[in-house]
Amino acid sequence: MNNTTLKEIANQLGISITTVSKALKGYADVSAATKKAVVDLAQKTHYSPNSFAVNLRTKESKTIGLIIPTLVHDFFSTVIQGILEEADKRDYLVIILQSNEKLEFEKKQIDLLLNKRVDGILMSLSNETGEFQHLNSIINHETPLVLFDKIAKLVNCSKVTINDRKASYDAVCYLVNKGYKKIAHFRGSYMPQNSIDRFLGYKKALEDNNIIYDPSLVFLCENNNDFDDGYENAKKALNQHPDIDAIFAITDLVAIGIIKYCNEIGISIPNQIAVLGFSNWFMSSVITPKLSTVDQPGFEIGKQSAAILFDEIKSKKSNTAVTFQSIELPTYVIEREST
Amino acid sequence: MNNTTLKEIANQLGISITTVSKALKGYADVSAATKKAVVDLAQKTHYSPNSFAVNLRTKESKTIGLIIPTLVHDFFSTVIQGILEEADKRDYLVIILQSNEKLEFEKKQIDLLLNKRVDGILMSLSNETGEFQHLNSIINHETPLVLFDKIAKLVNCSKVTINDRKASYDAVCYLVNKGYKKIAHFRGSYMPQNSIDRFLGYKKALEDNNIIYDPSLVFLCENNNDFDDGYENAKKALNQHPDIDAIFAITDLVAIGIIKYCNEIGISIPNQIAVLGFSNWFMSSVITPKLSTVDQPGFEIGKQSAAILFDEIKSKKSNTAVTFQSIELPTYVIEREST
Repeated sequence: MNNTTLKEIANQLGISITTVSKALKGYADVSAATKKAVVDLAQKTHYSPNSFAVNLRTKESKTIGLIIPTLVHDFFSTVIQGILEEADKRDYLVIILQSNEKLEFEKKQIDLLLNKRVDGILMSLSNETGEFQHLNSIINHETPLVLFDKIAKLVNCSKVTINDRKASYDAVCYLVNKGYKKIAHFRGSYMPQNSIDRFLGYKKALEDNNIIYDPSLVFLCENNNDFDDGYENAKKALNQHPDIDAIFAITDLVAIGIIKYCNEIGISIPNQIAVLGFSNWFMSSVITPKLSTVDQPGFEIGKQSAAILFDEIKSKKSNTAVTFQSIELPTYVIEREST
Repeated sequence: MNNTTLKEIANQLGISITTVSKALKGYADVSAATKKAVVDLAQKTHYSPNSFAVNLRTKESKTIGLIIPTLVHDFFSTVIQGILEEADKRDYLVIILQSNEKLEFEKKQIDLLLNKRVDGILMSLSNETGEFQHLNSIINHETPLVLFDKIAKLVNCSKVTINDRKASYDAVCYLVNKGYKKIAHFRGSYMPQNSIDRFLGYKKALEDNNIIYDPSLVFLCENNNDFDDGYENAKKALNQHPDIDAIFAITDLVAIGIIKYCNEIGISIPNQIAVLGFSNWFMSSVITPKLSTVDQPGFEIGKQSAAILFDEIKSKKSNTAVTFQSIELPTYVIEREST
């Protein structure tokens, strides 16, 4: 049975669509007889309000959009779970788009979401995103925007992150305290703020511990921080600097690539080389050796980003002023077998 | 800048909303002068059609709904990527909901999607789903529905799966051919069709190879086939039957739990026990020992499910008859180190 529309009810009763709509909403200027006729017919034909039409009155779509770099990803999928939980509490639906780490996709997807009149947008930026006009267009459109994980400092909106610089600093200090001296870093690409910050934390931790920063110990992950980045950079790094005694990787997936390479060529972890990852993926606790890492509270990041967005949507609806927030969630080093 | 509405243009020009709408759409019964005034004002005020209002005319929302058990999951997240790729080609947006393997959530989420007037729905059923009225309600609503992975045989719609029974049969035959004789199976719960089929394939492979089926070698995964199911069942199984020489697990995550347990108590894989998983998760290729498994083409399952759904949406729109399809994608055993 198809959805009965307002038009069909109007036609059947010989009245205007406006009158039908008003009758269903109980407007005072519709006669009791008309109201009854409309309501009876609506019930009889299983009429249910076209939620898109309802939107015209309340100006709410009860949907939000989410743009993330990738879904096949322990951290991002966990963040999404946090977002979905908050959306579910409020009967909101979430449109999910994957930017594949591409700025062009991100731009197109923002247009799609704005055209769809989502009530708000959540984003973690792509690794290519170094310009922000497309983000400002969301703000200019007066659609609430909350950034998480990979954010843009220059965009004026709420943000939920960890303190990447401190997390990285603590991680490298942990390595230094364990006695490691020649610590390499497999860094993320140059655009993302979190990649910049994790690198700066690494650098400062060395300096504060009187270890001279050596740029030749820093290797770039060019494949969006994936397994191959770890594997290939490990090969490069250990060939160029056989005396590296520890590697701090931008993410666990990169660290797992390092471990795989070392396992293959018979380098013992942690005895010959320590490996420290970042983000505490599930698989880090089951590989051999179990990977030491930095915890990154993905679910909580998702929950808080969404909660802030929903508050801002509510404030906008009631014309209340919004104060943007910058939330930094705590992290800590998880010591396992690889250090 | 907010979205200028049809109403604002109408007010400003002193004409009806209907006239504005017709003018923008180029209807013949609107005077040229009125059209020009409307178009000029629309351009000046950056009017963009409210896509929800457009929907009332075309009756299309250009969104589909997707309900899956969970997102933090190598297979499901890969399937979603396949779906998003097909949606993106057609400028469709995807609303994603997670049922958390709960029938009640599934029912509620279907209602939400139907109320949202999505053009179609894709689903992989929860582990609890043994009744199908909520699925039939989608069909009664005349909204196209395509099921994938965990499907319901009794629901009349298109389906995309693998041949779970054959995949499992081939997997167990592979174990038999490698010389294993006392083969345990860690099965999925009793409702899901794929779980039933993988169990039946296991059973038939034993029988066809003259190995007596022993129900005490079958262990139930009660935590939605997760890591703990593998770990705890391995403990149980090996205590009850120390002479088990191979275990066929319903999924890779369960198999990884088995491997972890064996590693912990010093049982050598594959020398003392072989372990075979199912679904070829990424982590299976990086753990120690690398896990032998059955490939499950998640991305392709997603792509084909979505492609079929979009075709059915198109057919519905043009009032063309639809013939439902049941697609079975091929699988194969991947031999690694654990067998």
